[in-house]
Amino acid sequence: MTARQESRTQVGIVGAGPAGLVLATLLARAGIDSVVLEARSRAYVQARVRAGVLEAPTVDLLREAGVAGRLDREGMPHTGISLRFAETPGGPAEDHRIDFADLVGRGITVYGQQEVVKDLLADRIDDAGLPVEFEVSGVEIHDVTTDAPSITYTAADGTAHRLRCDVVAGCDGFHGTARSVVAPEIVERVYPFGWLGVLAQAAPTTDELVYSHHDNGFALYSMRSPEVTRLYLQVPPDTEAGSWSEARIWDELQTRLACDGFTLNEGELLEKPSVTGMRSMVASPMRHGRLFLAGDAAHIVPPTGAKGMNLAIADVRVLAEAVERFYRDGDERGFDDYSATCLRRVWRAEHFSWFMTSMLHRFDSSTEAGDPFGVGLQRSQLRYTVTSRAAATSLAENYVGLPHGAV
Amino acid sequence: MTARQESRTQVGIVGAGPAGLVLATLLARAGIDSVVLEARSRAYVQARVRAGVLEAPTVDLLREAGVAGRLDREGMPHTGISLRFAETPGGPAEDHRIDFADLVGRGITVYGQQEVVKDLLADRIDDAGLPVEFEVSGVEIHDVTTDAPSITYTAADGTAHRLRCDVVAGCDGFHGTARSVVAPEIVERVYPFGWLGVLAQAAPTTDELVYSHHDNGFALYSMRSPEVTRLYLQVPPDTEAGSWSEARIWDELQTRLACDGFTLNEGELLEKPSVTGMRSMVASPMRHGRLFLAGDAAHIVPPTGAKGMNLAIADVRVLAEAVERFYRDGDERGFDDYSATCLRRVWRAEHFSWFMTSMLHRFDSSTEAGDPFGVGLQRSQLRYTVTSRAAATSLAENYVGLPHGAV
Repeated sequence: MTARQESRTQVGIVGAGPAGLVLATLLARAGIDSVVLEARSRAYVQARVRAGVLEAPTVDLLREAGVAGRLDREGMPHTGISLRFAETPGGPAEDHRIDFADLVGRGITVYGQQEVVKDLLADRIDDAGLPVEFEVSGVEIHDVTTDAPSITYTAADGTAHRLRCDVVAGCDGFHGTARSVVAPEIVERVYPFGWLGVLAQAAPTTDELVYSHHDNGFALYSMRSPEVTRLYLQVPPDTEAGSWSEARIWDELQTRLACDGFTLNEGELLEKPSVTGMRSMVASPMRHGRLFLAGDAAHIVPPTGAKGMNLAIADVRVLAEAVERFYRDGDERGFDDYSATCLRRVWRAEHFSWFMTSMLHRFDSSTEAGDPFGVGLQRSQLRYTVTSRAAATSLAENYVGLPHGAV
Repeated sequence: MTARQESRTQVGIVGAGPAGLVLATLLARAGIDSVVLEARSRAYVQARVRAGVLEAPTVDLLREAGVAGRLDREGMPHTGISLRFAETPGGPAEDHRIDFADLVGRGITVYGQQEVVKDLLADRIDDAGLPVEFEVSGVEIHDVTTDAPSITYTAADGTAHRLRCDVVAGCDGFHGTARSVVAPEIVERVYPFGWLGVLAQAAPTTDELVYSHHDNGFALYSMRSPEVTRLYLQVPPDTEAGSWSEARIWDELQTRLACDGFTLNEGELLEKPSVTGMRSMVASPMRHGRLFLAGDAAHIVPPTGAKGMNLAIADVRVLAEAVERFYRDGDERGFDDYSATCLRRVWRAEHFSWFMTSMLHRFDSSTEAGDPFGVGLQRSQLRYTVTSRAAATSLAENYVGLPHGAV
């Protein structure tokens, strides 16, 4: 057995997704060293298509961190979304725009998560020459209840390593190992449906996202670029993506998105359709000693509210500030407050995602009798949301993102 | 068999609750004759304690109808309510006031339903000498799909009557017979709990209503007069009121309403505690030919949103306008629109009542594991409601009452 190679940094970061990379960037800006460990290759994480909507506070943070150059050039600012629904059962669907700019003076930016990751990696590796270790395996986190934790792992070249550090950030996602070290209480809800997602080579019909409530189930229209459309259909949770033919997918999208004056352009599918389960999960607390969980390692939201990546970035902003305070003043109060501070925003996002999910999806497809009372509530909530300025503002401020620190 | 006594009016109204009596008043103001038939005695309906919160549009309507003299003298205007909850599990409960006056510039008025009924009966019978037939039995409604419907009934003195009319208003409540003549589709939801209500001879601790979210379940504090307090406890739905001792009731109220600076005054119970089931029901359509349902005959809301009586009065405002239009212009379009117009406000009230109910009650008491995710959503929603002006405004505008015709 060969000896482990030992190294040292201030903050050991497990995971090179948005959480880990934004944390590394914020720490570097504050003069704090970190090493990022990632199980996958750089090519893989740069191609991993996930979320695509950035909240206004997320964009602010990326700008302040100096990594928003390409985002500002190529990101697509949206100043609203549409809720599409029929006011009366069986009636024609109509679009009702929620005008974020008018309601809250801000908007969202459509920019793929993989583009954020590319920009952060280019900034860290190519521009600053700071370390990200790809393709590591066997990551284990040690001694987090001491002030000298460490991370052991096997590097891409097969050598065994021990990274000693003061703080460990567990940014390794829902399937990562950091959560098991914290051993938090988990609360969750699994929604009784999934989303069948397709990416199509088709010119967008309209720029903004369309959330459609339909008797057959929910559908979401979005654009990813001037040539690419991203579309989702609510499906039963155990649906095999392969069981839906391309023709059936387009047919159902045309049905659920039908609306006067709206033509859904069809096109070649750019990847195999996939089905995503819809769940909420919150781990609490998000800290154990010097180990801090951030992003999907600590919480999952259904995609309806477009909050996953934004929450991850909000978490590491809180963590970066706590780490800075620790090194600057020797003050661990930021560590002590970390979990409660993050969890307030996490629960806000869980609630907003639940609000959007429960307003828009069909919940009763498994029962013959259905849930007509539930559908009545949905129609009334949709109508109220688009006719009351207070209700529309509430949706808008959550969607655009409540200011960091204000939740 | 003796012959039926025949009489004629323009509008036959079944039921002398708030719906029937407000309708009779509005019609009388427009010069339209009506006869009100009521199964109970005048003394009974004047003592029947039900709702106690009047929306601002309800007060406006009663003023316009000229029956708000005593309401304006004795009604208690409230410009807010309190939401009481602990921000963290196990933490201390705090009050968060929703300031209706600041948020929407209007308030509610606490004035018992039985007082509204007294005022309407005094106006109709004592002042105007218009007919209300009490203690009628065997009411049957006939020929509603013709333009000559009639109502047969047995009067208090045992004589058989037939009241011929142009229009019939079914204002005979949830247990009445008018709904069966319309044969509407019913959608409903039964909530998995009830309210144990007590009326106590106890000086109010504070004027405004307090809605308390507590691990043991929901509790509601309200005042009815400077000497009388009305209190409610969430209980399992099959609870026998008699199974709770007075001591246990006060003990549980003290626990669920505990809050720094708040002392719940105890006092003699003025009536036997009772348990009210919590349900929502919507009948659709609310009209069949010349028979129009209004109030509890057509819809039930749980009491959490204080909407029942207000909805009944909103219904008959729409009906009175439709009837006026019919007699003035021979135009039946108001009749045709009646159901859809009413049902928009009904569903708004159903949704708001569901919103308040689901935010405040414990839903998981029947399962050992509970629903910690649901409780997390509730806490986040409560915190958001009291920290976001948009969210607080949304609650306030619904509670105070959206303008008639604006929903």
